[in-house]
Amino acid sequence: MKFSKKMNYLKASEIRELLKLAEKPEIISFAGGLPAPELFPTEELIKVSEVVLKEEGRQALQYGPTDGYTPLREKIADRMNTFGFSPKVEDILITSGSQQGLDFSARVFLDEGDIVVCESPSYLGAINAFKASMPEFVEIPTDNDGMDMEELENVLKTKENVKMIYVIPDFQNPSGKTWSIERRKKLIELANKYDLPIIEDNPYGELRFEGEIPPSVKSFDTEGRVVFLGTFSKTFSPGMRIGWVIADNKILQKYNFIKQGSDLQSSTIVQRQMNKFLEMYDLDEHIEKIKDVYRKRRDIMIKAIKEHFPSNVTYTYPEGGLFTWVVLPENVNARDVMPKALENNVAFVPGGSFFPNGGNENTFRLNYSNMTEDKIEEGIKRLGKVLKEMM
Amino acid sequence: MKFSKKMNYLKASEIRELLKLAEKPEIISFAGGLPAPELFPTEELIKVSEVVLKEEGRQALQYGPTDGYTPLREKIADRMNTFGFSPKVEDILITSGSQQGLDFSARVFLDEGDIVVCESPSYLGAINAFKASMPEFVEIPTDNDGMDMEELENVLKTKENVKMIYVIPDFQNPSGKTWSIERRKKLIELANKYDLPIIEDNPYGELRFEGEIPPSVKSFDTEGRVVFLGTFSKTFSPGMRIGWVIADNKILQKYNFIKQGSDLQSSTIVQRQMNKFLEMYDLDEHIEKIKDVYRKRRDIMIKAIKEHFPSNVTYTYPEGGLFTWVVLPENVNARDVMPKALENNVAFVPGGSFFPNGGNENTFRLNYSNMTEDKIEEGIKRLGKVLKEMM
Repeated sequence: MKFSKKMNYLKASEIRELLKLAEKPEIISFAGGLPAPELFPTEELIKVSEVVLKEEGRQALQYGPTDGYTPLREKIADRMNTFGFSPKVEDILITSGSQQGLDFSARVFLDEGDIVVCESPSYLGAINAFKASMPEFVEIPTDNDGMDMEELENVLKTKENVKMIYVIPDFQNPSGKTWSIERRKKLIELANKYDLPIIEDNPYGELRFEGEIPPSVKSFDTEGRVVFLGTFSKTFSPGMRIGWVIADNKILQKYNFIKQGSDLQSSTIVQRQMNKFLEMYDLDEHIEKIKDVYRKRRDIMIKAIKEHFPSNVTYTYPEGGLFTWVVLPENVNARDVMPKALENNVAFVPGGSFFPNGGNENTFRLNYSNMTEDKIEEGIKRLGKVLKEMM
Repeated sequence: MKFSKKMNYLKASEIRELLKLAEKPEIISFAGGLPAPELFPTEELIKVSEVVLKEEGRQALQYGPTDGYTPLREKIADRMNTFGFSPKVEDILITSGSQQGLDFSARVFLDEGDIVVCESPSYLGAINAFKASMPEFVEIPTDNDGMDMEELENVLKTKENVKMIYVIPDFQNPSGKTWSIERRKKLIELANKYDLPIIEDNPYGELRFEGEIPPSVKSFDTEGRVVFLGTFSKTFSPGMRIGWVIADNKILQKYNFIKQGSDLQSSTIVQRQMNKFLEMYDLDEHIEKIKDVYRKRRDIMIKAIKEHFPSNVTYTYPEGGLFTWVVLPENVNARDVMPKALENNVAFVPGGSFFPNGGNENTFRLNYSNMTEDKIEEGIKRLGKVLKEMM
């Protein structure tokens, strides 16, 4: 009995394995990327569920169209104003979380040996999804304004097999950084010049704690080459599994074919519940609540890092999203810190896994959305103690 | 901008396109594979939803484990007694419908050019899912007892690249036929001899209108080479999108890797709703209701076919499931019948698409689960008229 070649490239996500360890209630975990569950609108959803099942139960429990429930797609189209563009409803495909959009992107664009260009570091879940298509990864260094555009052009100029550029311009996972508008424009310019698709992954953009939401890369797209991935996982509930892909028809029809073979459609009932929630309640108001809580948590984490971490450690000040990113001196391996941290009942994710080609083991990612203020303070204190002992 | 090679192999499912045409309310449609929506337990689900959100809302809306919600997996494990085997809970992965299990099977076992062996005809959704891995299909003729085992052994003996055998032994889609126990045992014998995995797809097995449910192929599996796919789509609700894969650990871990990259996990909330329904209500009792309704519909359809179809047409008498299968004289093309049928406001699915290597255009599939008894009688009458005019 033989497995396909691609199975050699896949292994269990380190984060998911870590999350299992970090599940013990005594552990203060900064490891996952979990929203704060106390903010989930459970009471509202009870009402929403009842209305959906009473008024449209037969439709809600039946098969539905592959591309998704049209009223929900209409509302998503409207919401994209936030990111500076106005897609047509037929340019939207509902997916099971934006993770599915990542998986589909690889399947639509990549053959074995093709190159996907990404930020260094990049989102681990994307790296793993892409790996199933057996590509090579070329990582482009990033600074506080996003990807290094000179380096990107060098790669596009010299490498033949580049098939797709993957970016997370807003509160990047794992780095917490946000791209400048100039870099966004320059990215489009280069993608146009080298005739490449861009996958713009934006799960956190609406969770901006200060300043204005910058226009998305997609908003500068005049040639229909940006595939925009969105989700309600961070603004509403990840357990619903509702994300979306927005792309021009010539691209989106390929995603639709893949969707059809993959799982026919996303759950009709959760799509209708999400839609009904958007009709009955104000999601933006809900997002304001989330932002208020996360902003405080970010502030407390950053303050605690300042206070408790060794002074030769650097970290991102994220203007939104869920994560900050810590860089240790080069001789310190975050994977070695992890067991010590767990002994002290605190967890994080070592940063090495976010670099598809390895290295950079002196980094780690911290999540601040899922722990209470007290726990954040206490956890960072413990972690600071461990770091000081090891450095 | 270039798409991956596999995109050349994929096109929109003909059935899904037809379903759009058949959606007009005036059309009597035997085209889809839709359950009867009037049987969906909407009232019960309102209660279930409320309990889940009240008692475990925070967990239900949060991320959950990749392999699925354990209490639900436990209940599925228990239910497999129906099919004559008792899997371990850890051998079960929850998927988004069994369609996702088909997609994953191709990704786990097939490289480009590999051979997948299937029944002739076979399920169109499986054929499309497999195509994304660019395999070749070898179709094995079937009779009323299932696949022709001599022909299968000929293929396994002579073809080098066979990597997987795909079968639907119970009320096959599209043929409506069920395999004998002898053929099931023989299939295992051959898979053991040639060291191949079997994908056993069983979405309809519980909907048996008469006689005993035969032991599954999986129940005869002593070497852990059968991957069993199940679903609640036909016994509960397709809109929930809950299916499962059952396989031994060495195989299932590969499915888990693919699941992680594909969509992280299936919807937490619908898994918990399904689980709570199984706790609060009796699914088997619900299945009895479905069977009573579908049995009558089958009877009426078969009786109407006998009465109204030309006498040189043959058809399956299905002992369960959702479909019967009609074979016209060889010179009649069902695709030519379709426009005429639509003119008369009746729809079916031409059978050609169920043969991955083409041909057999003198066939079509009829679904009887989704139309009322009156409509079935009227629709078959209309279709009979069209057939008589064209033959």
